[in-house]
Amino acid sequence: MSQKLTTKQEVEQFLSQYDTFLFDCDGVLWLGTHILPKVVETLTLLRSLGKKLIFVTNNSTKSRREYTQKFEKFGLTVTAEEIFGSAFASAVYLKNVAKLPKEKSKVWVLGQSGIEEELAEVGIESLGGSNQALDEEFTTESPFLKLDPEVGAVIAGLDTKVNYHRLAITLQYLLQPDVKFIATNIDSTYPQKGMILPGAGSIIESVAFASGRTPVACGKPNQAMMEAIVAQHGFDKKRACMVGDRLNTDMKFGRDGGLGTLLVLTGIETVDKIHALEASEQPLYFADKLGDIFELLQ
Amino acid sequence: MSQKLTTKQEVEQFLSQYDTFLFDCDGVLWLGTHILPKVVETLTLLRSLGKKLIFVTNNSTKSRREYTQKFEKFGLTVTAEEIFGSAFASAVYLKNVAKLPKEKSKVWVLGQSGIEEELAEVGIESLGGSNQALDEEFTTESPFLKLDPEVGAVIAGLDTKVNYHRLAITLQYLLQPDVKFIATNIDSTYPQKGMILPGAGSIIESVAFASGRTPVACGKPNQAMMEAIVAQHGFDKKRACMVGDRLNTDMKFGRDGGLGTLLVLTGIETVDKIHALEASEQPLYFADKLGDIFELLQ
Repeated sequence: MSQKLTTKQEVEQFLSQYDTFLFDCDGVLWLGTHILPKVVETLTLLRSLGKKLIFVTNNSTKSRREYTQKFEKFGLTVTAEEIFGSAFASAVYLKNVAKLPKEKSKVWVLGQSGIEEELAEVGIESLGGSNQALDEEFTTESPFLKLDPEVGAVIAGLDTKVNYHRLAITLQYLLQPDVKFIATNIDSTYPQKGMILPGAGSIIESVAFASGRTPVACGKPNQAMMEAIVAQHGFDKKRACMVGDRLNTDMKFGRDGGLGTLLVLTGIETVDKIHALEASEQPLYFADKLGDIFELLQ
Repeated sequence: MSQKLTTKQEVEQFLSQYDTFLFDCDGVLWLGTHILPKVVETLTLLRSLGKKLIFVTNNSTKSRREYTQKFEKFGLTVTAEEIFGSAFASAVYLKNVAKLPKEKSKVWVLGQSGIEEELAEVGIESLGGSNQALDEEFTTESPFLKLDPEVGAVIAGLDTKVNYHRLAITLQYLLQPDVKFIATNIDSTYPQKGMILPGAGSIIESVAFASGRTPVACGKPNQAMMEAIVAQHGFDKKRACMVGDRLNTDMKFGRDGGLGTLLVLTGIETVDKIHALEASEQPLYFADKLGDIFELLQ
């Protein structure tokens, strides 16, 4: 049974079990453009207790560097090294796991600049993505139809510039069986300013359905992402806790990795949804908001 | 076992069994912008033998009226009544089966003008679709986010103007459980000029995945389309033959409806694909091309 954090003693007991905290960002630290109550104080408190903080996001539209600027806007100071995004995870996967041969070393991107920037960081050349020529209406004269034979993989993620041109060219590469297919994440929706907008998964599903292929998904809850985080940060998973607002991505990600789990109710879940799950699938802990950790300790 | 039409006697025996012929268009009559060999002669011959001809297409981008102009360009004269497209089928479904209540009688369209025109023909008001304001980049200030409470259904089809704006607004309507969800057809691809482009199904899959909903599909091979054709044209299904170039849409459509089936190999299928199927799933007849009917009878 999931335990709600409601007293100072419960919070102290909770904190004593973990040295490392992994945080989902949107819905946990902030909601759209507003920081959530007492988040600054809670993170400051955790740092003062010597806890290691890692921020894990499925948002692939920004690189880690761009993401630090988003934190700054909310008054939160974090380093690029403390951030682990699905664009970075995809680039790391391509570099270290998929290992494209030299003659097929370029990547076609269906997605935004975050992916392009992370690929560049690991030394992989990308095509497509934010190229403005793809904003033009698709015709059968599109110059992109002359496919680059050196493309060895497609990375697809959330793309608010998606159009038929981008989908059509991405499909041409996916019709080549030797071109690998990687998804930054497969979240079906993208909550934004109180609205539910189409997520990376719903863009990717389009080209997956057209090509009859299933991508390797790099974001939460895929454990390839966890292994990459552990490899980079080197912590004991038993002494780490995943904090998030989604049962089917964040909480599954933590549970499958053998971490502790804390669900906050500032995102899309409710107490009823927790209790509708089998005990083994419930988060170990839940709280109305992350800031309760700070407030309850006062 | 599927029988190939190779002699005059076989063609005569084939034709004697059927009074009505349903034809798929692209891949059977023409391929992209080129009419296929001896198609004009074959259709003229069939008409001279007193056969009834009906043209059945999953293409939802054109209305029946616009489609007659496409036939004219190929030197084929047909009436709008002889054409049955998936945009029309969707409009008929909404009008006669779904029967939207007066206060929820408008339809949001993710698709092209064919759908809008067919809806107008049956007296249904539509929104979205080809509206150029939807070509603008999506922002959370989009005027379309003020949802029209009178929208009672979404019709989705192939849309080469698809973008995040159209997907995002379509999703907002689909998140309302009382708004019906209709797909013109769910073809995953759209063969065009020797290329495989994303089809209606791959656009629809995107909003289906984001909303967690499954549409009612009106096009081939759905038998709702067959029933609508029979209702309009009144023929004996046992004395009718479906002619097409796709096993999983055209041939399934004919077989499920209890019609005879003729596969032509001018589209996407091959002899090997026929023989890979169980005998009960093979088309009754196949031919290298539709024009063989004319040529073999000479």
